[in-house]
Amino acid sequence: MAKTLKVIFLGGVDEIGKNMTAIEYSDRIVVVDAGMSFPTDDTPGIDYIIPDFAYLKSNAEKVKALFLTHGHEDHIGAVPHFLEEFDVPVYGTAMTLAAVSYKLDEHGVSRDKLHTVEYGEKVTSGVFTAEFVKVCHSIAGAAAISLSTPKGVVFFTGDYKVDLSPIDGKLTDLARMAEIGASGVKLLLADSTNVEEKGHSKSESSVGASLDVIFSNHCEKRIIITTFSSHNYRLQQIVWLAEKYGRKIALSGKSMRKFLDISLKLGEIKAPEGIFIDQGDIKKYEPGALVIISAGSQGEPMSALTRMSVGEYSKVKIGQDDLVVLSASPIPGNERLINRLINNLYRLGAEVINDDMDYVHSSGHAHQEEMKLLFGLLKPEYFVPVHGEYRHLKKHAEIAVQSGIPKENIFIPEIGMTIGISETGCKRLDNVQGGAVYADGMLLNGISGNSVLRDRKSLSDSGLVIALLILNRRGELAIPADITARGLSADEGFVDEARGQISVALAALDLDSDGTSIDVKAEVKRALKRYIANKYKQYPMIIPIIIEV
Amino acid sequence: MAKTLKVIFLGGVDEIGKNMTAIEYSDRIVVVDAGMSFPTDDTPGIDYIIPDFAYLKSNAEKVKALFLTHGHEDHIGAVPHFLEEFDVPVYGTAMTLAAVSYKLDEHGVSRDKLHTVEYGEKVTSGVFTAEFVKVCHSIAGAAAISLSTPKGVVFFTGDYKVDLSPIDGKLTDLARMAEIGASGVKLLLADSTNVEEKGHSKSESSVGASLDVIFSNHCEKRIIITTFSSHNYRLQQIVWLAEKYGRKIALSGKSMRKFLDISLKLGEIKAPEGIFIDQGDIKKYEPGALVIISAGSQGEPMSALTRMSVGEYSKVKIGQDDLVVLSASPIPGNERLINRLINNLYRLGAEVINDDMDYVHSSGHAHQEEMKLLFGLLKPEYFVPVHGEYRHLKKHAEIAVQSGIPKENIFIPEIGMTIGISETGCKRLDNVQGGAVYADGMLLNGISGNSVLRDRKSLSDSGLVIALLILNRRGELAIPADITARGLSADEGFVDEARGQISVALAALDLDSDGTSIDVKAEVKRALKRYIANKYKQYPMIIPIIIEV
Repeated sequence: MAKTLKVIFLGGVDEIGKNMTAIEYSDRIVVVDAGMSFPTDDTPGIDYIIPDFAYLKSNAEKVKALFLTHGHEDHIGAVPHFLEEFDVPVYGTAMTLAAVSYKLDEHGVSRDKLHTVEYGEKVTSGVFTAEFVKVCHSIAGAAAISLSTPKGVVFFTGDYKVDLSPIDGKLTDLARMAEIGASGVKLLLADSTNVEEKGHSKSESSVGASLDVIFSNHCEKRIIITTFSSHNYRLQQIVWLAEKYGRKIALSGKSMRKFLDISLKLGEIKAPEGIFIDQGDIKKYEPGALVIISAGSQGEPMSALTRMSVGEYSKVKIGQDDLVVLSASPIPGNERLINRLINNLYRLGAEVINDDMDYVHSSGHAHQEEMKLLFGLLKPEYFVPVHGEYRHLKKHAEIAVQSGIPKENIFIPEIGMTIGISETGCKRLDNVQGGAVYADGMLLNGISGNSVLRDRKSLSDSGLVIALLILNRRGELAIPADITARGLSADEGFVDEARGQISVALAALDLDSDGTSIDVKAEVKRALKRYIANKYKQYPMIIPIIIEV
Repeated sequence: MAKTLKVIFLGGVDEIGKNMTAIEYSDRIVVVDAGMSFPTDDTPGIDYIIPDFAYLKSNAEKVKALFLTHGHEDHIGAVPHFLEEFDVPVYGTAMTLAAVSYKLDEHGVSRDKLHTVEYGEKVTSGVFTAEFVKVCHSIAGAAAISLSTPKGVVFFTGDYKVDLSPIDGKLTDLARMAEIGASGVKLLLADSTNVEEKGHSKSESSVGASLDVIFSNHCEKRIIITTFSSHNYRLQQIVWLAEKYGRKIALSGKSMRKFLDISLKLGEIKAPEGIFIDQGDIKKYEPGALVIISAGSQGEPMSALTRMSVGEYSKVKIGQDDLVVLSASPIPGNERLINRLINNLYRLGAEVINDDMDYVHSSGHAHQEEMKLLFGLLKPEYFVPVHGEYRHLKKHAEIAVQSGIPKENIFIPEIGMTIGISETGCKRLDNVQGGAVYADGMLLNGISGNSVLRDRKSLSDSGLVIALLILNRRGELAIPADITARGLSADEGFVDEARGQISVALAALDLDSDGTSIDVKAEVKRALKRYIANKYKQYPMIIPIIIEV
């Protein structure tokens, strides 16, 4: 029987088909990307979320290589965990691997397995050959991966846009895509993020033009700009503007300094000698002579900018001389944090410009017309929209149909979806285990993670009540029940009344049960639950502890 | 000494200067609005938030009347609580009081104190006279309140827009505002919600035109529309369209049915005989013959639409024949809930249109040019921007300056701010107690509320560990420590290791202390905290319970 190639979608939380995809043929698996997702209000206390490696682990001897499209956290954030499990080479561009290296160092994982590739270079792993194709995105070194397999080419766009005046002068390699398309693409996996946006995305360079006007209109002010730390193209434009307007640059925030270092080292940012000053020297400069580039564009509570906004960042004190530019868009879910940040900046007297007020950000993801362009160049036989919420994937599928891909050749992914490619074409196979693993000091898989999160959500909703009962051998209270409540809104009468309820429950129980502590526990729980629901309209977690002495 | 008039800002949480304002002169206080705010991720488990009545309670004998601008929750939601404290007349338009009546019934509070006023009518309470001036907003019966006082007119716009083709044909009463302005306005308090929007707001009637195109393009589909339940003008337009396209209307959601009832009764919605059908009859109609108007435009988890989107609403099963129109904008903070709602609707096969994709919603709040128009008509001597986040208030102040109000005559409000008006003008006096009272089964004031919320947040972050120690008279463990964890991500070794840590802590304690349980408690807490932080990188709430037997 002819062998089947499998494409397996292992990652994503709110967005599907991102973070990690595995391609399996016979005794070999190669993996594209190993990224993380970020926690939301649904995952309280969780630091980050990585894909479930269960399927890969149960096929560990087959896993042979990891290919990385670009250096953003949602594509590389799980690499340290991946390398702890699988001792295989990791391929990516210089910028991507520089970002990975920092993460490996933090986790104490060796960099030995990293192999730098150039655009156009081909990497062979058994029957697979991966070619890294230049794409424009909001970080240098972004690549599409064209994977030659025994069943044809599987093309991963990675995150991309078609920027016709990119900051580094290097266009998305449409010519190479056209060649690959001409020789045949079996399956395309393409970025769906901005599918709701009509037309073409604006060039990154147009943001610089807009920032230029802001610089020229605010000569007397100190300018504090925040953007995504890894956005070397945005940083480059700010450096150019600082140079043009004779300002020095200070950097605030560890991630910002890290990516500036990487970018300078790799030549992805070019800056004149002496333009950067130490944060400690900020106070030596007049407002109009300085730009501060700060991390914290999402209003992250511990970020440099958020701390500045509440006066808790000693090196930068914000006031009436400051203009703060939020050169970024809110990631959905961060709106309230960002609103609070802006309000606090205004409270300190600063002027604030964000993307709603002026054109100070451009997305790194393709709009509809760019998506159509790629369909036209790559002419894939089959298509899977990836990297988007369900509605985005669905819309991207509609655009694929408009672009001539037959409806029955399009698959909307879900976690664990497996597509089999054989001589007769693509079809869905049984799903494999996929999903989220929560990192929270330790790693929690789906089942234990969900139980921990359920408890946390329940606790945050109405708090908890602990009822400690010490019973003598006759099943009576040896001492009065000890009641402890946390996060419950009750009044003074609560402890006494709760004790009363417990006594009544115990008395009733005595009459018609054999007095085992399981009954006592359940009955105490029921009694307290009923009492608190009736009196306080709350539903705390109730933890009875019964000790028999 | 001449008496001073006080204007006191008692309400608001994220937005300031809304919910409740008190005006005091000599032995009399009248109150404008008694609204609620809604909980956020910062207030887990809280049902709603009302203003702190502390100042009013300590001056209870002075409180003489409550004037209501309109029937939205953020302006009337606290009326039942207010009436439980203060036995005074409540004045509002018919629509406003109809909405209040429903709330009073739910709380079992009498409607006796409600007094309906007409637009243009004047209500006198001692030295104060309140005139209700028609304004357009997203609910009928909205009024500005022009309050004559011994120190001049204090003018409250309430929530308003200047709609020049309103659904009911009744314009914001600019003529009356011009007259009031001509005879002199001492202090203006005006709605700042949409101050970031340039130009004029679009008329409510333009939404109908846009919905008409959607109806005409989707003749075969069942149309499910969600909007704010109290938006009688939007509902009226949907009724007209249903009539035009020969569709029946079913209503889903209690709040939607409540407001339709109110609006029909008051003539604020006019509908042809027999157009409404019972939800139970939905299945009898072809998709193209039906419109379902549903509550749940904010993705509220228990709302009709959210339940439909996950297949848990038995009367409406959503599928490929459905077009869902979200004729509303997201209230900041609800974006993720709404995204999830849309994704789930797509999963069921429905088509979805929201405000990002098509023009299906218009705000009920004035844009910048309308704000300038009001400054021009009312010509206030002093100005307080209200009803907005800090940055909105600040921008509204800038527009006031552009409109000719001297900068020093503008006050940005904060909770508890008191403005004194005397012969020499307005100035800030000392703040009074204001702020949030959390309703959560019972009412929690700032201090106890914050402690409850702090506990809930801490619990939701890393859960909790209960360590129960039963000590004998020698201070030794009578039985092994009982360890209970909830919402903590730990592994199997945890309970044994935690017991070990406790034993070590107790042993160390024995040597150099007098063995009181306070020391034991603190030491057990410290030991567990250190152990869990080191091993699991988590910081759960630790509750030691020490029993001596």
